[in-house]
Parts: sequence; structure tokens; C-alpha cells
Amino acid sequence: MDKESFVGQIADIDKDFPQWYTDVVLKTKLVDYGPVKGTMVIRPYGYAVWELIQSELDKRFKATGHSNAYFPLLIPMSYFQKEAEHVEGFAPEVAVVTHAGGEELAEPLAIRPTSETMFGSMYSKWLQSYRDLPIKINQWCNVMRWEKTTRPFLRSSEFLWQEGHTAHATAEEAMEETMTMLGVYKEFAENVLAIPVITGRKTEKEKFAGGLATYGMEAMMKDGKSLQAGTSHYFGQNFAKAFDIKFLDKDGSQKYAYTSSWGVSTRLIGAIIMTHGDSRGLAFPPKVAPVQAVIIPIAAKKGGVNEACLALKEKLAGLGIRVEFDCSDNSPGWKFNEWEMKGVPLRIEIGPRDLENGKAVIFRRDTLEKAEYPIDGIEKTVCELLDTVQSDMLEAARKRRDERITCAKDLAGILAGVEGGKFVKAGWCGARECEDKVKEETAATARVFAEGETAEKCAVCGKKARHVIIFARAY
Amino acid sequence: MDKESFVGQIADIDKDFPQWYTDVVLKTKLVDYGPVKGTMVIRPYGYAVWELIQSELDKRFKATGHSNAYFPLLIPMSYFQKEAEHVEGFAPEVAVVTHAGGEELAEPLAIRPTSETMFGSMYSKWLQSYRDLPIKINQWCNVMRWEKTTRPFLRSSEFLWQEGHTAHATAEEAMEETMTMLGVYKEFAENVLAIPVITGRKTEKEKFAGGLATYGMEAMMKDGKSLQAGTSHYFGQNFAKAFDIKFLDKDGSQKYAYTSSWGVSTRLIGAIIMTHGDSRGLAFPPKVAPVQAVIIPIAAKKGGVNEACLALKEKLAGLGIRVEFDCSDNSPGWKFNEWEMKGVPLRIEIGPRDLENGKAVIFRRDTLEKAEYPIDGIEKTVCELLDTVQSDMLEAARKRRDERITCAKDLAGILAGVEGGKFVKAGWCGARECEDKVKEETAATARVFAEGETAEKCAVCGKKARHVIIFARAY
Repeated sequence: MDKESFVGQIADIDKDFPQWYTDVVLKTKLVDYGPVKGTMVIRPYGYAVWELIQSELDKRFKATGHSNAYFPLLIPMSYFQKEAEHVEGFAPEVAVVTHAGGEELAEPLAIRPTSETMFGSMYSKWLQSYRDLPIKINQWCNVMRWEKTTRPFLRSSEFLWQEGHTAHATAEEAMEETMTMLGVYKEFAENVLAIPVITGRKTEKEKFAGGLATYGMEAMMKDGKSLQAGTSHYFGQNFAKAFDIKFLDKDGSQKYAYTSSWGVSTRLIGAIIMTHGDSRGLAFPPKVAPVQAVIIPIAAKKGGVNEACLALKEKLAGLGIRVEFDCSDNSPGWKFNEWEMKGVPLRIEIGPRDLENGKAVIFRRDTLEKAEYPIDGIEKTVCELLDTVQSDMLEAARKRRDERITCAKDLAGILAGVEGGKFVKAGWCGARECEDKVKEETAATARVFAEGETAEKCAVCGKKARHVIIFARAY
Repeated sequence: MDKESFVGQIADIDKDFPQWYTDVVLKTKLVDYGPVKGTMVIRPYGYAVWELIQSELDKRFKATGHSNAYFPLLIPMSYFQKEAEHVEGFAPEVAVVTHAGGEELAEPLAIRPTSETMFGSMYSKWLQSYRDLPIKINQWCNVMRWEKTTRPFLRSSEFLWQEGHTAHATAEEAMEETMTMLGVYKEFAENVLAIPVITGRKTEKEKFAGGLATYGMEAMMKDGKSLQAGTSHYFGQNFAKAFDIKFLDKDGSQKYAYTSSWGVSTRLIGAIIMTHGDSRGLAFPPKVAPVQAVIIPIAAKKGGVNEACLALKEKLAGLGIRVEFDCSDNSPGWKFNEWEMKGVPLRIEIGPRDLENGKAVIFRRDTLEKAEYPIDGIEKTVCELLDTVQSDMLEAARKRRDERITCAKDLAGILAGVEGGKFVKAGWCGARECEDKVKEETAATARVFAEGETAEKCAVCGKKARHVIIFARAY
């Protein structure tokens, strides 16, 4: 294996994590920079990951009673004004269409940064009676938020996401929806992306602009920073009042509905990269790997090697496994590096001597372990190994994370923790000033409440703690 | 059946086709108007059709070697200038972003009306050697064209579509791609949408702005007008030269690539409606019907009717059939009208007497015929009937269309033909003035060349005909 050429390709993950990330996403052709600053082109290898994410999530949305729909991209600027906090939160980063069809528009239009206002205006029109409730609609679409500092997948002016918007007759039902979807996200993150997440409520400072309560799921990246991987919001009647979403209830009176929204985005691809990647590049959990297994011939022209590889490829493809057979002119060592960097979970090596012995070598990307298996029935081994890799990757990530969760009793402790690349649990009195002070002194923010946990004192002011907060530096 | 209340819901298809269309799309909740003029909200029932279209087409794109990706929404205005015809064709209907993030932009950005320029700029960056070719990428996305007169699905400022963009080493390969995808569209339109289409080359006047040749597929709507349901373009080296898409060929020289693009949009939903709909409303071919069969209980509370309906629903759902059981409080007659209007291919009626006799009634939406079938094994009957309805709908549409294709030898003949709601084949000398004159005098446009057919004289000027053109009024 030509280790030298490989090492030169991507920055050292331990020395320069941000550069490692940039190298990996560009060199594996997941993504490229678009011509407009802050935009990205999601290339076929990256988009394949998004398609797998979509397919898995969409099943779960439909199983929980949601339908997909498509709402317009352009939202009248006046809509944002209808909810005071909402306009304050989103107006500064909106992209605005002022001209169309060769003329100046009477009212400028925002490219959606999120669609609460658009869904709100339509739900107001559609909703008549309690019989129409609940309304549970999701959309897969592009959104735009003009950001100053951008990074592919993590923060770009345009990104892809899904946004679910629901309306209910009661506060309880809307809150139940909020929590159900948070649970769907957590189950999906852990079982499909192999990313362990901590879910919980966000502070007032960190919540969605215009909502009553935001619940987030936070994942620890390999540099110890937190990535907000999904959110679920409870709005109470805020948006219903702003957009007049009313219904005639059973008792004959007009009532405002209770609404919720929830979303995840192409950011999840960044979360996969930074949870599982290593010095060799990407490492995909099998369920979202665009290629799950690659077959590499050793001395391809000898003794039926090519034929054996092709036959195995057909067999695996027939079982629904996403498999590639790399029969290019490159050396086996070059191919090893290439497919390791691209994060393919299993590599199957077949050479003339293997064929003589009726064996093949399988390399696991997650553990970097090689082992020999009988070629006869190897498709069954591959299926089993894919399952094993999937669950081992979750457990390995969970172990890495759990080792890096600590507690602190004061600001110095929080600082030491986050400087050491950890999540830090600390008591908090509930005052905004104390939350702000943590950010000023440590560059860490309140990620979520550690539900059910208690502390005696606020780590900042020393007064009685009302909550335990998980603090971390975050993407 | 309460025929009266039903008739009142939608305009008479024979008397006012445009109003019938509007009534049908709104009342069946396929779509609604968005708050910004010319925009539409694709509601769950309509979006389900789009999801089925996407799934069927996407399979075909992948089977022909294409990958999906996602390119940015915003295109610098200067990109359009790089291809002279292209800017002339698209600039007038572009929506322009001038402000973002609270500041005026240095260069205004267009919301993509189509993405040849964006793909071109990236292909130029990615393409190095002949080994990188062909590049065959598709994207599913929203596009925007600011139109003066809009109608849901048919022409709206924003719509959803797919756009495939490919680059090849030779003209032959690019042309082969253009024709392959035209063939994919035709097979899909006929076998999935049950819409017979005529494919062929378009005239210079009707071709894509910036292309060398456009091939279209045209479908006849029930009012005799033509709807362009998809296009496939051959660009030669036009865009490659404008965007510097070059590669190092085997012979060591730098060459420009040859490119193509092809697309279909949510317009196809309009095509389904206007090909198959009738006085009762929508009629979906089973393969794109959001609901393929609806079970309606007659006297639901009696003798195990509800239980029998539920059991059948489970059985059909288990076979992968999209089935609904309408157990609402409405009368059977009201339900019949509702589901007929919504275009569900099969209605299964089960009442107490049917159960006693071991039979159920199945109503076919396409032929309006009812028949009794043994309940035992009825799931097999339903599967077979869905196949029959699918192929019968194509043949019925083909028959309707073929009866309305005529020939003309002069302008009066073309006028008489299109006024009678027909497609008219006529000789054409090839001169733009003659093509323009047909439009002025008859409001018909040249849809496609009738490939392989010949005529003696141009129907307009009487000079020698070089082609036979299919003229029609069009959406």
C-alpha cells in the first residue's frame, strides 16, 4: 500500500480538524463550492447519502401519519412581520427578490429561510372545522439563509431540508407531535446514521424565533464540538394567532389551533462525516453508505479472478447490497486508499491464491481489521458484517462520546471541559446573564437541558440551580 | 346516487373546458393558489402524484446510467450573457435577487429558470480528461419563470421538475443521449401515465434558447390542444464553448465536449388531468393514482360489513395496493361522487346482501362499468383489474387522439382542423415566415416534425414542402 501518496491527500485529523473536514468533503467528491459565495454543489456521491437519508426518514414520516406537499419558495416580506420574534430572527439573513419578469415588484419577496409563515397562511385558508384536524404536512425542499461564514453541509447560504408543519385542536396534541418527531429523529440518528444523540429542550436564548419551546438533538463531533442535528418546535397558538389559523370546534366556538414544526437538513451529512471519519477519510455506516461494499481484484488477469469478482458483484447486487467492482487500471494499493477515503464499509479482496484456497479477504473500514472468509456463501457473511458494522459504529461513537461528557461546578470547570473537547454538564440558575457569561468566557453555548438531572448551584453566579445544562462549543 | 349535488360541483367539461380544469384541480385538492401571484401550493393529493412520477422516472434515469445531484438555486446574471441566444430566451422571465443578508449584492443573482449555465460552469471545473466522460447528472428541483398568464401545473412562476445535463466526448454520443432520454420519456408517458405521445424534432422557432436541436413529446388534451409534456435538447458544443467545458482527449489534444439536457415537470400532472378527466372529474391511471382502490361499505353497521371491508383493506394493502376504506359518516352516494371526482380507478362496494352472496361490486372509474365478483380471492381480481384499467386507459386515449389527427393542404384546412380540436399535419417549406403565418391566422404552432412523412407543397406558400409539421393549438 502506497501509504505516502495517501497521507498527502488530507490534512491530519488530530492537528487540523477543520482542514481535514474540508479536504475530505472535497476530495471524496461529496460536494464542491458553487460559484456564488457560500453556496454548495452536492455532487452525486454526496447526494446519494441525502437520498438514503430521505428515503429512511420519509418512511418514518408517513408511518406517523404525515403527507408530503410543496409550498412556494417566495414569501411576501410582510408575512414575516406578522410574528414579531420571527421577523427579528430571520429577516437579517433573508435573500430578497425585488425584480421579476423585467419589472420591479410591488412588494419584495423573501426566499424562504423556513416556511412557518407560508404554511400558516395556507392552513388558515384550509382549516374550517375540528374535523379537518390534525393537519400534518411535510415538505422536502431548498431553503436559504444568508450566512457570513459558511462551510459545506454545516452552514451554507442554500441547503436542502425537510420541514414538517402541523396544526392541532389542543395544546396537548401539538406537544405530543413535537415530542413524537423528536423521538423519530433520535431513533433515525442512532439506528440509521449510527450517531448517538442527546435530545432535550433548548433555553429561551437558543430557541426558534417565534416558538414557545424548541427541542433539539445534539451530537458530539470528533473534535468534541456539538452539532445541532435536528429540532422540533412547539408553537402553542403563536403562529395561529399571527396567521389566523382558526377552526370551529365541537362546542360551536371558534378556536385558534396549536401548531408545531420540525426539521433536519443536509447538515446531517456533515454530522456523519465528523462522527465517523478518521485519518484515512470518510467512514459511512452501511445504512447510508452510497457504496456498501467494494470488490477489488488482486492480479485481476490471473486464474478467473475477474470472473469471480463479477459473479460476486451480481450476487451481492441481487441481495440489494450497493456494491462496486473496481476493475480500473489502478494498483490494488491505490484502490485501497481511494475506497477507504470514500468510507466504504467493507472491502472484499479476491486474488488467485484466495481463489485456490476458496477464500476471500474482507476489510472492515470501521475497525480497520482484515479477515479471511470462505468464498462459498460469502454473500451471507457480507450481509451479517454490514449489520455488525452498523451496530458497532453506533456503539463506538457512543463510547467515544460518553467518555467525553464531564461535569463542572464553576466557569473554570466549564472552560477546562470545553477546551478539552468535552460536553460539560453544569448547574444553571436560569438567568440569561449567566448563560451569556458562559458564552463570553468559554465560547460554549447551552445545548440542551439535561432532563431529569439536578445540581445544587449555578456554575456562574452560585445561586440556586434550577436546571442542569449541557454546555459545549458548537457548529 | 345524489347526482344533482355532484353536477353542481364542477363546470361542464364540454361547455367550458378551462373552468372544468380549474374546478377539478381545486376541488379535488390537488393544488391551491399560493399568496404570490402565479405561484401554486401542491397539496398532498397532488404531491402524491408527483412522488409516483418521480419514483418511476428516477428508476429509469438510474437504469440508463445517471446519478442525481443538487446544484445551487442562484445563478449570477452574468452567466446568462455567456450564451447569446440563451440570455435572450430566459432573461425576460427571470426573478432576480438583489439584496441578501441586509445588503445589496455586488452582482444580481437569478433564480434558476433552468440550469445549463450552472451545470456548465461546474462541468468546466470537473472535466479534465476523456476518462471523466461521459458525465451524466440529473437533478430534481424547483425552477422559476415569471409568467404573465398562469394556471396550476400548466404554467406557474415556480414549478418542480427534473433536469438532466450530460457531457460527452463526441457529437454522436451526445445525440444518442438526447434520443435515449426522449425514448425514456415516451415509454414512461405511455406505460405509466397512459398518455400516448408524439415525439419529434421541433422547428428552429420552437427550440430551446441556445440549443442546436430540441426534441419534444406532445400529448393531445381532451379539448384537442397539444401539451408539450417533455423535451430533450442537443447542444452540440454551444454551451461547452460558452462555459469552456474542455477535456484532454486520447490523442493528446484539448477538445470541447458535446452536451445535452432534458426535462419534465409538474406539468405532467396537468397532462394526466386533461387526458383522462371527464364530466365527473379526475380519472387516474392506476400507476400514478395516489389511491388505487377505495372500499365503500353499504349499510356499514349491518352483518359484519365493516369487518369485511377492513379485512379486505388489509389484504390489498399487504399486496402493495394503495387502498382507502371510507368509513366516514357520509352517505354511499356522496362517497361515490367524491371518490369518482378524485379519480380513484376502482371502487369496491360491500353491503350485507353482497356478503350473504359472497360477492362484492367493483366499479371502474375509466369505463364507468360495474360488475360483481366473488369476495373470495377478490384481491387477485383487483390486481388484474388495475392492470386492465391501466392498459385500457392508454388505448382509449390513443383512440381518441388518433381520431383527431387530420391533414391539411392549405391555411384554411389548418384553421378548420385546429378549430375542430384536431392536430393537423401539413407540408411546410421550412421558411420562418410561413410558420409565423400559421400562428397569426390559426393560433396554432408547429409542435413537432412528423418524422418520415412527406408532402408535396407548403400549406402556406405553395412552394415545395421540405417537411411535414404537426400543427396544433397548444398549452
